[in-house]
Amino acid sequence: MPHITVPDGLPGIVGLLAFKPSTGARLAALMHEVLRGDGPLSLADRELIAAYVSTLNSCEFCARTHGSAASHLDHAADLRAAAELGPEAAGLDPRLRALLRLAAAVVSGGSCVTEELIESVRAAGAGDEEIHDAVLLAATFCMINRYVHGLATVPPSDDDSYDRIGEEMARRGYLNR
Amino acid sequence: MPHITVPDGLPGIVGLLAFKPSTGARLAALMHEVLRGDGPLSLADRELIAAYVSTLNSCEFCARTHGSAASHLDHAADLRAAAELGPEAAGLDPRLRALLRLAAAVVSGGSCVTEELIESVRAAGAGDEEIHDAVLLAATFCMINRYVHGLATVPPSDDDSYDRIGEEMARRGYLNR
Repeated sequence: MPHITVPDGLPGIVGLLAFKPSTGARLAALMHEVLRGDGPLSLADRELIAAYVSTLNSCEFCARTHGSAASHLDHAADLRAAAELGPEAAGLDPRLRALLRLAAAVVSGGSCVTEELIESVRAAGAGDEEIHDAVLLAATFCMINRYVHGLATVPPSDDDSYDRIGEEMARRGYLNR
Repeated sequence: MPHITVPDGLPGIVGLLAFKPSTGARLAALMHEVLRGDGPLSLADRELIAAYVSTLNSCEFCARTHGSAASHLDHAADLRAAAELGPEAAGLDPRLRALLRLAAAVVSGGSCVTEELIESVRAAGAGDEEIHDAVLLAATFCMINRYVHGLATVPPSDDDSYDRIGEEMARRGYLNR
């Protein structure tokens, strides 16, 4: 049961956005911008980074829905496995693998993002904007995961619901939910 | 030196918001809403919670600027000490002390926000909206701290600069910076 009473028992973050629309609208706008706005990272790669960060933060709702969204955005790659395994997953291109390592460092804390790590990310082909976007994306999900988990929102009870929510996120993005 | 090249060597988050205005505008809108929007927590208490979370996350720029903003918003209380000491600081009212404990749990991770902790926060006088707002505020600064620190932004070098930035944040809020 959630720690606060959310409208209609809506699952995960959906109930929280509806609980307080003034903050909900700003959160949705930020999520949409980092996951769908202009930038050099593909939409599937962004969803994958969001899912992997959520796995590290033990937020099942976010990990499974964003992992599903990544798969719906790129049917060719098996991104669902990478959402759990991160940089150790098979078949990732070197730049994405390096950005997943960067995201994991952000989860551990800002001071874990060392000069050496940044150099290895650049060597794998990422520039300033990729580095900025990956750090902000990982940081954003360190917020979202704590919000969703810290208020004890209720996750869906079946696999089909996760897949349906992920498909809708892939198709519609995060505004006007 | 920051990990990415920010305009004009601007300090802390200011340079990052200018580096990518599309995400910067959404981050500023969210910060303004959680720190200045409608809600039951006083503006000084919000700045204090933000500063204490930043202390726990070892983000000196955010801890000192928001601690300064708290003091400028409530001259009566010695909130600068509480920005470092959190719930152990002297002279806090029981509800604020409980909300600082809640914020510390959010920093540790969403699963640390237990039923027992929520019950103790309610016993100290907080309802659903105070609990929601404090969790979201703490989660927001878990993002901001990682963004500012993870990209190795340069903090101001002297005490006067921190106080000046905090005074300006207290007076103007976070939009159109």
